[in-house]
Amino acid sequence: MDDFTVDGVTLPSRLILGTGGASSHAAAEAAIRASGTGLVTVALRRVDPSAPGSILDVVDRCGVRLLPNTAGCFTAVQAVRTAHLAREAFGTGWVKLEVIGDEKTLLPDPVELLAAAEKLVADGFTVWPYTNDDPILARRLADAGCPVVMPLGSPIGTGLGIRNPHNIALIVEGAGVPVILDAGIGTASEAAQAMELGCSGVLLASAVTRAEDPTAMAEAMRHAVIAGRLAHRAGRIPRRTHAEASTAFEGMAAL
Amino acid sequence: MDDFTVDGVTLPSRLILGTGGASSHAAAEAAIRASGTGLVTVALRRVDPSAPGSILDVVDRCGVRLLPNTAGCFTAVQAVRTAHLAREAFGTGWVKLEVIGDEKTLLPDPVELLAAAEKLVADGFTVWPYTNDDPILARRLADAGCPVVMPLGSPIGTGLGIRNPHNIALIVEGAGVPVILDAGIGTASEAAQAMELGCSGVLLASAVTRAEDPTAMAEAMRHAVIAGRLAHRAGRIPRRTHAEASTAFEGMAAL
Amino acid sequence: MDDFTVDGVTLPSRLILGTGGASSHAAAEAAIRASGTGLVTVALRRVDPSAPGSILDVVDRCGVRLLPNTAGCFTAVQAVRTAHLAREAFGTGWVKLEVIGDEKTLLPDPVELLAAAEKLVADGFTVWPYTNDDPILARRLADAGCPVVMPLGSPIGTGLGIRNPHNIALIVEGAGVPVILDAGIGTASEAAQAMELGCSGVLLASAVTRAEDPTAMAEAMRHAVIAGRLAHRAGRIPRRTHAEASTAFEGMAAL
Amino acid sequence: MDDFTVDGVTLPSRLILGTGGASSHAAAEAAIRASGTGLVTVALRRVDPSAPGSILDVVDRCGVRLLPNTAGCFTAVQAVRTAHLAREAFGTGWVKLEVIGDEKTLLPDPVELLAAAEKLVADGFTVWPYTNDDPILARRLADAGCPVVMPLGSPIGTGLGIRNPHNIALIVEGAGVPVILDAGIGTASEAAQAMELGCSGVLLASAVTRAEDPTAMAEAMRHAVIAGRLAHRAGRIPRRTHAEASTAFEGMAAL
Repeated sequence: MDDFTVDGVTLPSRLILGTGGASSHAAAEAAIRASGTGLVTVALRRVDPSAPGSILDVVDRCGVRLLPNTAGCFTAVQAVRTAHLAREAFGTGWVKLEVIGDEKTLLPDPVELLAAAEKLVADGFTVWPYTNDDPILARRLADAGCPVVMPLGSPIGTGLGIRNPHNIALIVEGAGVPVILDAGIGTASEAAQAMELGCSGVLLASAVTRAEDPTAMAEAMRHAVIAGRLAHRAGRIPRRTHAEASTAFEGMAAL
Repeated sequence: MDDFTVDGVTLPSRLILGTGGASSHAAAEAAIRASGTGLVTVALRRVDPSAPGSILDVVDRCGVRLLPNTAGCFTAVQAVRTAHLAREAFGTGWVKLEVIGDEKTLLPDPVELLAAAEKLVADGFTVWPYTNDDPILARRLADAGCPVVMPLGSPIGTGLGIRNPHNIALIVEGAGVPVILDAGIGTASEAAQAMELGCSGVLLASAVTRAEDPTAMAEAMRHAVIAGRLAHRAGRIPRRTHAEASTAFEGMAAL
Repeated sequence: MDDFTVDGVTLPSRLILGTGGASSHAAAEAAIRASGTGLVTVALRRVDPSAPGSILDVVDRCGVRLLPNTAGCFTAVQAVRTAHLAREAFGTGWVKLEVIGDEKTLLPDPVELLAAAEKLVADGFTVWPYTNDDPILARRLADAGCPVVMPLGSPIGTGLGIRNPHNIALIVEGAGVPVILDAGIGTASEAAQAMELGCSGVLLASAVTRAEDPTAMAEAMRHAVIAGRLAHRAGRIPRRTHAEASTAFEGMAAL
Repeated sequence: MDDFTVDGVTLPSRLILGTGGASSHAAAEAAIRASGTGLVTVALRRVDPSAPGSILDVVDRCGVRLLPNTAGCFTAVQAVRTAHLAREAFGTGWVKLEVIGDEKTLLPDPVELLAAAEKLVADGFTVWPYTNDDPILARRLADAGCPVVMPLGSPIGTGLGIRNPHNIALIVEGAGVPVILDAGIGTASEAAQAMELGCSGVLLASAVTRAEDPTAMAEAMRHAVIAGRLAHRAGRIPRRTHAEASTAFEGMAAL
């Protein structure tokens, strides 16, 4: 399948997995393996990098890359500080940037997000910003030096899928960098839809970790992202108002 | 993966493919192989079973089962006659029953369809009825002895996907036999959605045969049906109005 | 506003009201008056025409026409018998024909419905058939002599609105008689949408009678039906993918 | 009907009209009158306040209030300057604040918008900000002192309606000030839907001015806003998966 490369690193899958919500490290490991992902995001504020037996051991054991995130930060200042701590702790300059506006919606704060992204790019980070589905903000984040943008489908953990496919399509069209659908996915068809809209990847956590059978759902997501990517590249049929027979019967013998 | 058995026959895939609209037999063969299907539907009125080099040779070569259909029939009488011709010609009592109401929409005629189904069941056929998405008609078809029912997502060839998921869910809930989504699928996510709604399989033709790259779309559909089936069985997360963090931050050190 | 005439009778409103679910006769009367309707449907099986103080007195007092319905009938035979009783009892040959397929969905049975419609037309009735949203069945009902067809938006009492606007548009396009959206409406915007799709009228009951404030909702529906009808005739703007400024700024002085 | 008061001014209607796109001043006047609006927005950059025969004369003649807007501005600096010019020219401190991110989507730039709003509030303006449908930005605009917020349904002039009703509901829930749906409305049912979601008003232009019959569409919108407001207050029925008869038939005589 076609490569997906960010910042010179080629990833083996277009699915990125979060582990928040997993019932155990064993469950997280099984989900990571079933998903086929090559990149796992972990909240710095949730782990103690020096403690044994953390989720980081799982990540290591699975041989996947780590994408630390700044979940739990509400201001640019907090997020920048968290990103620096993550870089020191984990030895990676990649960071999923989350700057949240409130606890009820966990929606990103656009102003704080852009400010944090600008600062972190200047500090040499590879910034993966979690953003709302605003095409203008997405382009500003790309212009600020983010190599990808990660708009939400719907608020974190809601499982409402892609509330506004039109905006995602506008972001794909105008951002100028790869787009990764991040947040809101509840089931496989929605991950496929994200790829069909032209996204380059999908990031999800709760849809897998909180499913009744997380391993099965992880495998579902693996297939879904492949399906959606293939369909996007295959060139779908146009939508029509009226029917079109797959078979023509003109000139056939009457029965 | 879990088996899908109809009439004592276990099929290797939950995807059923039509070949109408394929640009060539080679294209049809490549699509059949990429899709992983074990069952291909062919319109009797389109093929001459005795002629060499027909689509039937492709079906044979691929080692898949044949599901003759009565496409092009507008009355119960026509459809019954066509089914009998198909049984003689192909040596199979399986038939996809299509009785169409008009050429503009190619929607099924519910009254003629039920009458034809009742007659064909009495004549010993295994009837796979192509029906609209009416839960009442679906149950009547099942009550008449059809071992599956095949409601449409939207009119044939429109690529409009599943216009009324609520009705498909009601059919799955009430039909009492396996449900196969038939017609209207335009892209992979919609095939996955059908399976997530509880369908036991998906039948499609134009979405693959008329895609820009039919082989790639066939492979997309293969993954999509697997993804949707896995997701259905995995037990998706509930939909929520407000966010739920995948990670909780209570009690963490302030930054 | 443009007239709406059925069977030679011009109705003062395109809204038809059911009274089932009203908390009292006074509530029903207030709703009828606020709605501006000229036609009210009542289930024959619910009223005793000879008893004083029935809903019929309300209908009389409001000066609106009565449309008896066959709610509660599950076969053509039952429905035909009920219609005849209604004609004798109420002295009207108008009948809203309901033939229900099951109690869980209250969806119409297409085969029984068509059979009953054919019989009642032959018996001289003016048949208003409550049907599913199948364009083929709708045309068959019109061909059978029904002067209108009444497809559902969604199942009775669900308030799910118009689940499949595409089908409603196909029915408007192909039925050849006026279309009245019947069942499923939950709120005003959905009644407006029905009219915008080209329906000639809307029939609803629970949306008004079971609202917290039935009188206010009745008034809302009155405005909604007018709004939708006006909008349909006014010729809406086309949908566009990209923006179009309402004002052009070319050649303006830079600020 | 319930009052709608902003900044101490009670408006006679919850519909606000733009005149951009009107084919003539006469057409604009007819639309204003048919709409019943009490507030009309005009782009400062489009009018010369001192020239006779401008759209301002129409506004005067109709006896409606003027809401100057900063359409055509792409930065906070431009928008602030335009607002000041408007205040001098028109003698009103009310301003609809538009700061656009690009010409293709005409979507607002969230960062420039918030900066401009903060400055204009500090300068004593009553700021009506045209914003995207981001609940966080909406609350920040309210916190900055805007007495209303005006999220879009979809991009200006697209007629795509309310792409993300969930976000509009979140804004109504969280903004703390009245919400006016601004941009994207294409037809009457969508204006009603905005009100049902809890918006306090609707602003639209192209849907009326570019309709085939602008006066009829203006009247449609007048009814739609009233319908949606009444329905919102009336308390709609809950949505159900299965049917609920409006009439119960238990204990009735069998027919």
